[in-house]
Amino acid sequence: MNILIENGIVLPMTESENSARKYFIASVGIKGNKIILVSSNKDEISSFKESCGEDLEIIDAKGKIVMPGFINTHTHVAMSILRGYSDDVELMEWLTKHIWPIEGKLTPDDVYVGAELGIAEMLLGGTTSFLDMYHFEHAVAKAAINSGIRAVLSPFFLDGRIELFEDDLARTIDICKTNSRTDYMIAPHAPYTCSDDTMEKGIEIAKRYNSGIHFHLAETRNETPEYISRKGESPTVHLCKMGLFDQHTVAAHGVHLTEEEMDILAEKHVTIAHNPRSNMKLASGFAEVSKLMSHGINVSIGTDGAASNNNLDMWEDMRLTSLLQKGLTLDPLAVPAYTALKMATVGGAKALGMEGKIGIIKEGALADIIIVNQNNIHHFPLQKNIISSLVYSCKSTDVNTTIVDGEILVQDGKLLKTETKEIGAKATERLLEICNR
Amino acid sequence: MNILIENGIVLPMTESENSARKYFIASVGIKGNKIILVSSNKDEISSFKESCGEDLEIIDAKGKIVMPGFINTHTHVAMSILRGYSDDVELMEWLTKHIWPIEGKLTPDDVYVGAELGIAEMLLGGTTSFLDMYHFEHAVAKAAINSGIRAVLSPFFLDGRIELFEDDLARTIDICKTNSRTDYMIAPHAPYTCSDDTMEKGIEIAKRYNSGIHFHLAETRNETPEYISRKGESPTVHLCKMGLFDQHTVAAHGVHLTEEEMDILAEKHVTIAHNPRSNMKLASGFAEVSKLMSHGINVSIGTDGAASNNNLDMWEDMRLTSLLQKGLTLDPLAVPAYTALKMATVGGAKALGMEGKIGIIKEGALADIIIVNQNNIHHFPLQKNIISSLVYSCKSTDVNTTIVDGEILVQDGKLLKTETKEIGAKATERLLEICNR
Repeated sequence: MNILIENGIVLPMTESENSARKYFIASVGIKGNKIILVSSNKDEISSFKESCGEDLEIIDAKGKIVMPGFINTHTHVAMSILRGYSDDVELMEWLTKHIWPIEGKLTPDDVYVGAELGIAEMLLGGTTSFLDMYHFEHAVAKAAINSGIRAVLSPFFLDGRIELFEDDLARTIDICKTNSRTDYMIAPHAPYTCSDDTMEKGIEIAKRYNSGIHFHLAETRNETPEYISRKGESPTVHLCKMGLFDQHTVAAHGVHLTEEEMDILAEKHVTIAHNPRSNMKLASGFAEVSKLMSHGINVSIGTDGAASNNNLDMWEDMRLTSLLQKGLTLDPLAVPAYTALKMATVGGAKALGMEGKIGIIKEGALADIIIVNQNNIHHFPLQKNIISSLVYSCKSTDVNTTIVDGEILVQDGKLLKTETKEIGAKATERLLEICNR
Repeated sequence: MNILIENGIVLPMTESENSARKYFIASVGIKGNKIILVSSNKDEISSFKESCGEDLEIIDAKGKIVMPGFINTHTHVAMSILRGYSDDVELMEWLTKHIWPIEGKLTPDDVYVGAELGIAEMLLGGTTSFLDMYHFEHAVAKAAINSGIRAVLSPFFLDGRIELFEDDLARTIDICKTNSRTDYMIAPHAPYTCSDDTMEKGIEIAKRYNSGIHFHLAETRNETPEYISRKGESPTVHLCKMGLFDQHTVAAHGVHLTEEEMDILAEKHVTIAHNPRSNMKLASGFAEVSKLMSHGINVSIGTDGAASNNNLDMWEDMRLTSLLQKGLTLDPLAVPAYTALKMATVGGAKALGMEGKIGIIKEGALADIIIVNQNNIHHFPLQKNIISSLVYSCKSTDVNTTIVDGEILVQDGKLLKTETKEIGAKATERLLEICNR
């Protein structure tokens, strides 16, 4: 299938903050899964049309914004089935009395249903790729493939679960191989849940498969002091020595890091996936994103799971990434709007090891594109500068079209492969059934 | 006009956190501008219907949430015309080089157009009342009356503007008198922009009209130290001695307050209107809402103006009120969801001096009600507990119906008196014109 997105306001995210070409009116031509034209030249557009013949879907994007889809770099998408199941509870009570007991009941099919729900929410809100971590990731991989979204799945392990993990990983890899939109990493849960033995096994497996690593780092305040009291050094220093960061690594959260740790993470090209709303809701604190970035660390954005957020809306987490840093540093210039947009797109592509392939609109890149309406009340008055509008007032419900890998998955704000009503009803019914087990 | 809202999930906001009747299935009957029935009793509902005869609009609210509309207790609604006009700039540069110069060009008619835009956004998002502060408030009063929203208008003054203010106040009062949904307060801009002389004049005027007072207090970090170095005491202490708080008072922001100031504000029943997103965006900091509340202060929620937020979405500011306190205090129990809902409704009613009249659904109260859809993807799985869903994942675009004073102003997510397209186009055109003056 070929697509021509005509006359939109194209925001390619390839430019620097000071560029006068951050956005411009143009048409975007897609052949198969790739962008092959970004142009306002009539002849070029005509010749693209001709080359497509009858196999061409034309989308009129006049007055709409055409930009790369968001890349959600830390979530547990299947936990959408537990959205609202337990809130406003102390963290340890939340985990031990509410979340872990019900998670213990989940089957791969439950994980599939939860993932289907979360993926639908992401696609409708303009997220085109996500980096996931959970158990039964093979079920998430299946849901991802059936939905059409791009996904990197990370089966996780911790002490006592290495065998379950290896089985999940093998299945996940088998499924990922069948589809170009899915890939995998491996996920040691966190430094405090993995002994050195467990971590070494994980690193060995990652090296064997040459896979990336996705783990939780310094999410809560007490983790690092406790780790230091046991090991004599911080998780970052210790894991670096063990060789964890020799693989491509994404560390979720990074709320409580020392300057020394930041230097190591920068040097090792570790991405920090920042989850501002989850960090607040679970009372973890505020990550020092401005400082992380000034150390040269790539910071991307994640929503975390819907049991701790409670929605998978990248617009809100992008907005909060900017607002929180201004509030935290008392500097109104902290994380300006365009920087936040870059973190949610280009920064996400780096996190996934796909820099230059996704998160941007340019000839040769994969066609992961969203088209955003500007006709809702909170966009007016329409400004020449669309960046502020996108970051400071836009909503997930403004997303008109979501295209992944050249396939239109959302059009006119509706899923094309299935219906919200069906997915929602299925999830509601399934949660009831799980609770009654 | 009489209205029967049938079979909704009614969240009256009259109950305490531990009540088992926080919400229940019921029908709500409205006669004129008042709620006269909240019941699930078939006979009572039938007899309500009979008493209305043919003059009855029935709204089927099955599966939807029926709750009081939000009360936005601090905004400059006309500034919606400046949304996105200037962002990511140092505060003093933002004010002196961007906002003040363009504000200086605004006519009462521009203020009307801006207010019309902001009010439309609020109604669509489920806000039924607002407390405003600006110049040319008589134009905002007109826009409010034409839209049907409930509003308390506060013409503002500062040194050198008392005469302009008195003229605006007189006009605003004249307009407010014509409509039961509008009222007024007077607004000394802030302690640092009003000399003692100016403040005394304001207090004298407030006493003369027996009006409430609405002002900015302790928004930015340096205000109080600078004030103390000039006056030898904090603004709160000084203004209290001057008798400012002897009138009903709403203080916007309250980001940087000492414990002594909090005690005074509590004793004097001053409401703090908390503006979490504006405080972050303008790099003012994080207000200590949990601490304010533990001192016994009524804390309500505001969006501030759209030039510093950049939307007037009470759902987002309510969500942030809860999330920020958890992040700030590292206590996941800080400002639980139901408390945040109370602040946005009951707390707002107290701020407006209308406790028991609005912000709740009960027989005898004014019919300021919203009906919220649960059919969007971020609500699933549907839980028995709707509170989390409302606070942690709901969006302004979930609002189906907005009723103010017994009049339906939004139905099926659309304004009934006008169209978003028209209001938006008018605002876009007007801003261009203002810029070219």
